Amino acid sequence: MVVILENNATKIQTESIIKNLEEFGFRVHVSEGEQRTIIGAIGVQPDFDTRKIKVLEGVYDVYRVTAPYKLASRSFHEEDSIIKIKDVEIGGNNIVLMAGPCSVENEDQIYRNAEIVAKAGVKILRGGAFKPRSSPYAFQGLGEAGLKYLRAAADKYGMLVITEIIQMDQIDLIGDYSDIYQVGARNMQNFSLLKELGKTKKPVMLKRGLSATIEEWLMSAEYLLSGGNPNIMLCVIGIRTFEKYTRNTFDLSAIPVVHKRSHLPVIADPSHATGLRDQVPPMARAAIAAGADGLMIEMHDDPKNALSDGPQALLPDTFISLVKELKAIANVIGRELA
Amino acid sequence: MVVILENNATKIQTESIIKNLEEFGFRVHVSEGEQRTIIGAIGVQPDFDTRKIKVLEGVYDVYRVTAPYKLASRSFHEEDSIIKIKDVEIGGNNIVLMAGPCSVENEDQIYRNAEIVAKAGVKILRGGAFKPRSSPYAFQGLGEAGLKYLRAAADKYGMLVITEIIQMDQIDLIGDYSDIYQVGARNMQNFSLLKELGKTKKPVMLKRGLSATIEEWLMSAEYLLSGGNPNIMLCVIGIRTFEKYTRNTFDLSAIPVVHKRSHLPVIADPSHATGLRDQVPPMARAAIAAGADGLMIEMHDDPKNALSDGPQALLPDTFISLVKELKAIANVIGRELA
Amino acid sequence: MVVILENNATKIQTESIIKNLEEFGFRVHVSEGEQRTIIGAIGVQPDFDTRKIKVLEGVYDVYRVTAPYKLASRSFHEEDSIIKIKDVEIGGNNIVLMAGPCSVENEDQIYRNAEIVAKAGVKILRGGAFKPRSSPYAFQGLGEAGLKYLRAAADKYGMLVITEIIQMDQIDLIGDYSDIYQVGARNMQNFSLLKELGKTKKPVMLKRGLSATIEEWLMSAEYLLSGGNPNIMLCVIGIRTFEKYTRNTFDLSAIPVVHKRSHLPVIADPSHATGLRDQVPPMARAAIAAGADGLMIEMHDDPKNALSDGPQALLPDTFISLVKELKAIANVIGRELA
Amino acid sequence: MVVILENNATKIQTESIIKNLEEFGFRVHVSEGEQRTIIGAIGVQPDFDTRKIKVLEGVYDVYRVTAPYKLASRSFHEEDSIIKIKDVEIGGNNIVLMAGPCSVENEDQIYRNAEIVAKAGVKILRGGAFKPRSSPYAFQGLGEAGLKYLRAAADKYGMLVITEIIQMDQIDLIGDYSDIYQVGARNMQNFSLLKELGKTKKPVMLKRGLSATIEEWLMSAEYLLSGGNPNIMLCVIGIRTFEKYTRNTFDLSAIPVVHKRSHLPVIADPSHATGLRDQVPPMARAAIAAGADGLMIEMHDDPKNALSDGPQALLPDTFISLVKELKAIANVIGRELA
Repeated sequence: MVVILENNATKIQTESIIKNLEEFGFRVHVSEGEQRTIIGAIGVQPDFDTRKIKVLEGVYDVYRVTAPYKLASRSFHEEDSIIKIKDVEIGGNNIVLMAGPCSVENEDQIYRNAEIVAKAGVKILRGGAFKPRSSPYAFQGLGEAGLKYLRAAADKYGMLVITEIIQMDQIDLIGDYSDIYQVGARNMQNFSLLKELGKTKKPVMLKRGLSATIEEWLMSAEYLLSGGNPNIMLCVIGIRTFEKYTRNTFDLSAIPVVHKRSHLPVIADPSHATGLRDQVPPMARAAIAAGADGLMIEMHDDPKNALSDGPQALLPDTFISLVKELKAIANVIGRELA
Repeated sequence: MVVILENNATKIQTESIIKNLEEFGFRVHVSEGEQRTIIGAIGVQPDFDTRKIKVLEGVYDVYRVTAPYKLASRSFHEEDSIIKIKDVEIGGNNIVLMAGPCSVENEDQIYRNAEIVAKAGVKILRGGAFKPRSSPYAFQGLGEAGLKYLRAAADKYGMLVITEIIQMDQIDLIGDYSDIYQVGARNMQNFSLLKELGKTKKPVMLKRGLSATIEEWLMSAEYLLSGGNPNIMLCVIGIRTFEKYTRNTFDLSAIPVVHKRSHLPVIADPSHATGLRDQVPPMARAAIAAGADGLMIEMHDDPKNALSDGPQALLPDTFISLVKELKAIANVIGRELA
Repeated sequence: MVVILENNATKIQTESIIKNLEEFGFRVHVSEGEQRTIIGAIGVQPDFDTRKIKVLEGVYDVYRVTAPYKLASRSFHEEDSIIKIKDVEIGGNNIVLMAGPCSVENEDQIYRNAEIVAKAGVKILRGGAFKPRSSPYAFQGLGEAGLKYLRAAADKYGMLVITEIIQMDQIDLIGDYSDIYQVGARNMQNFSLLKELGKTKKPVMLKRGLSATIEEWLMSAEYLLSGGNPNIMLCVIGIRTFEKYTRNTFDLSAIPVVHKRSHLPVIADPSHATGLRDQVPPMARAAIAAGADGLMIEMHDDPKNALSDGPQALLPDTFISLVKELKAIANVIGRELA
Repeated sequence: MVVILENNATKIQTESIIKNLEEFGFRVHVSEGEQRTIIGAIGVQPDFDTRKIKVLEGVYDVYRVTAPYKLASRSFHEEDSIIKIKDVEIGGNNIVLMAGPCSVENEDQIYRNAEIVAKAGVKILRGGAFKPRSSPYAFQGLGEAGLKYLRAAADKYGMLVITEIIQMDQIDLIGDYSDIYQVGARNMQNFSLLKELGKTKKPVMLKRGLSATIEEWLMSAEYLLSGGNPNIMLCVIGIRTFEKYTRNTFDLSAIPVVHKRSHLPVIADPSHATGLRDQVPPMARAAIAAGADGLMIEMHDDPKNALSDGPQALLPDTFISLVKELKAIANVIGRELA
């Protein structure tokens, strides 16, 4: 921690600041500049609240010199993490596709759509069985029946399963059917849920909260990692901004930033980020070009009658031609989308 | 729902839009303007996804004509809601104070602080027993022991209790000790939790999510109300903006807006909004002047050694003089802070 | 400047970073922590671009230890600045009111409204003669004729004049008629304009840009001050956030923050911040309670027919009763609104 | 305009609303729904302030049914606009590159860098001669000397010139040397400047303001177009968000949105958006993949000693290999980057 004093901090203030730092367990290293005195506070206290120093008289500002996360950081783990699930690798040079409908609506629907995406080369089938909806009056998912259909459809076409978990008491149930737990944006700081998922070894995909900073997102990954689960991937979505013509602002600039700060694989979800079908292909292409390690895309063969998020689902034909473009862009940057 | 067509929408597009609306169950009312055709879609479907129409060819834009919430709206319930808990009323002309330390740290600490706030006229004692922390390495609360101390201290000094619930399986436990459930900003869209709390009749204070729109906040209140619990109050905190000199931006402009849209009481929390002790008094005064129905303020008699959020806790003397100012400002606008 | 190295920075990287700092003219002070090496770079270079160091291999982060503004900072000038214009003082214990219509529309209109606000105790008359409008098709102001009417009306009722300047070549013209130049939010970073205004000695009120950080705002004040004009006041307005039920978010939390960082007086403008008449009184009261040194409020006796911003103008009766409340709140916090 | 009444609007309120609309010059079309009465207000008034109706008793909400811009809209001009400057076309299937240093620093520097970018296939040379800087103490550009060097260097290597204009009185001077006026983000709502530029026929590139909505940006384009200048292109940069690990958030989702709403060409500037060299290549690739009609990229052969923005300038080698990737991505989506 670095403590910058006010220009006009008095001697008494300075001594009191030093005394406080020592009482909080830091060793202190004082350096007098031309204008400012700077105090280095040495000693690792990852959860120290820097405001405790900021409120002292004579302090101008306080900076942390370590990220508040450790296991998620690239300085802790220099190589890219690769998550292996059966014969699929997430992270590394390969780019992975996750696709399927927003919700599992019935048995027939998920089989039909599973077949389409499997033929296009998708390795991981998505579909929601428990839906967190902002309206209490909206479709809330099929529950366990949905999980069964989803698993069976994925098995039939040789795919893995990813599905969302929305509360702690679903860990065993969803664990029985799914290969990857998806934690949605609204649960990114549901620390109770993160702690429990950290105790499993099953892969978790952690979406960024709608207004979470990248640092907070990596802190939530730290919750999962510190519980003992190393199989964590991140998922870039839209963030909330002032713009009204788009649902959210798809923050692709987060991709190179996270890759620099962390070793965890980064997936991108252009469907939820944009919310409208015709914006998905350009944003999917852009995510690959920006370096995403995978994409999650919603596809539905009858979006008009979809029970949730139909307007953002691609139609099968668009999806199939998009995948071809994505493969070509992956090649341009020396990667494989298989 | 109002559907605005493109200037140059073709006849075929227009007919297809109308057909779609009818298939979705709306009656249709077409009005041709000088530049645009406008279609009124009549029929109440509170959870209809307007993007279903927005993606159709020839549509320029779509607007809802009803708020997506009903029970929370002032058109449903014109009078201010007043929540009665024992001899305390929240809402109406009276302004209520909730105060206490951020966390219950030990028996002695909560008794000492309860005595101070009770003497200053506070009716509701606050204190966290389960703390949602962004770092997995930070103090997570005393749990049930904390609840016991909090209840006993409140009883001794004749106060009610408010404390935060962070996961569904704490409903009974916290319900045994607390008069009000506090739902924190990060759980504002934890719909599983909201559904369960809606089934109780115990009062709930719902904080606004850090980046939640007022509409989403009222939708979350709707979850609680639609479960059958009428005793809901809202709590204004900071919202996330681009500004870096403040922790968050305390959105006081939400107070008159919510009062216009909804009948629910609105509390304000200047401590968490600002995060720094010296900004709490001006923002507390401003909240009362802006029309808040109550305040939640953190106070600690030894903030330096507080286990959480010490830097934002007021010292006892500052708290006591602030309460005097708040009473005087309440009087200026014809209200009582008792 | 403080430079934090990566945990695993190599010796070669460290030496290269030090060499770079020295070449940029800094003296270097190295401090080795348990996890990190920290380099203090000593030497004042107010416009040094810290990214020059941030892009070097082995650097984790870089922090400035001085604010980029100097003349605007409280460490440079510890006492509150007070601006004296004839018999009016802005800053200090006194709270000043600026009021009037959005635009000067004709001679009669500005006289009528000047009389109303003067009788309510307002010392400074506002009114726009040059209007920056987001639509090229909207009313753009009366120009010099508007300035003449405004000055004459203010003189008749013994008030000062404040009016907005929107381009450099209006400095002399507006200077002839107005006591204070108002720089609008959109021009907060019109550096060409700021440089010219800095060369005059006439008071300037600088509104915060809609998405300007407080630091950028103070940097713009620095442009004015560094040109030699000490008579600078700031004006808090709304900032742009994600919220859609309000036009902007009135950032009152900026008031105590600016008062801590800077010695300049802070006015607040609840009319433009909220954009709707019924939200002006609560926000005006809140601004005084939060410590504003003055308010700018729009009032119009016929807002329905106003040529600009009628919907945010208070009616005379509301204005008059609001002023009474503002005086009472000022007294509660030991100030005078005269 | 569509006016939605409150559920419980009285008959007297409804009649008064209708009367107001008629007095404002609208024809009125009333439609009674199950819950709400909706009033269509017919008649084109592009600058009508909808808040005039919103403040009336009994009104729930008001929506515009036409965009406030016309000439900039795709409904006005269905085909993509193509701007021709000598043998270069901007817009259409071709993708154009603009590149060069941030500032013109001296004659030698601009010739050296012009040669590098010309050889890589760049058609338009960039370089600032007048620099708007947030600090009054920073390098402000070479002025006319810079323009001369820039023009001469571009001519020598067969390129066009683009350079920034920061104040109205530079129109003739910059017009003498440059093929395109660049209007920076901070001047996007400098309406005085836009009006004057609208009177010329010389191409203008209008950057999006840091917190400007897409609608406001198109309104500023409308200022230029309505003055009679049809040669307008837009430039996507970063927008201001809450994120602190990136300078700004590069809003690529704006590209498909603007292409849908408007016929104007859209350039993207990944250098200013990200502010750091290593983030420029992924974001440049993403912009092409997302459908940008061109890129503006900063390149410097000695960025360490650059007088402005060196840390975001690509080195020559990186630039040259990036251009190859961009060409390949352009081909994937059926376009040419020549």
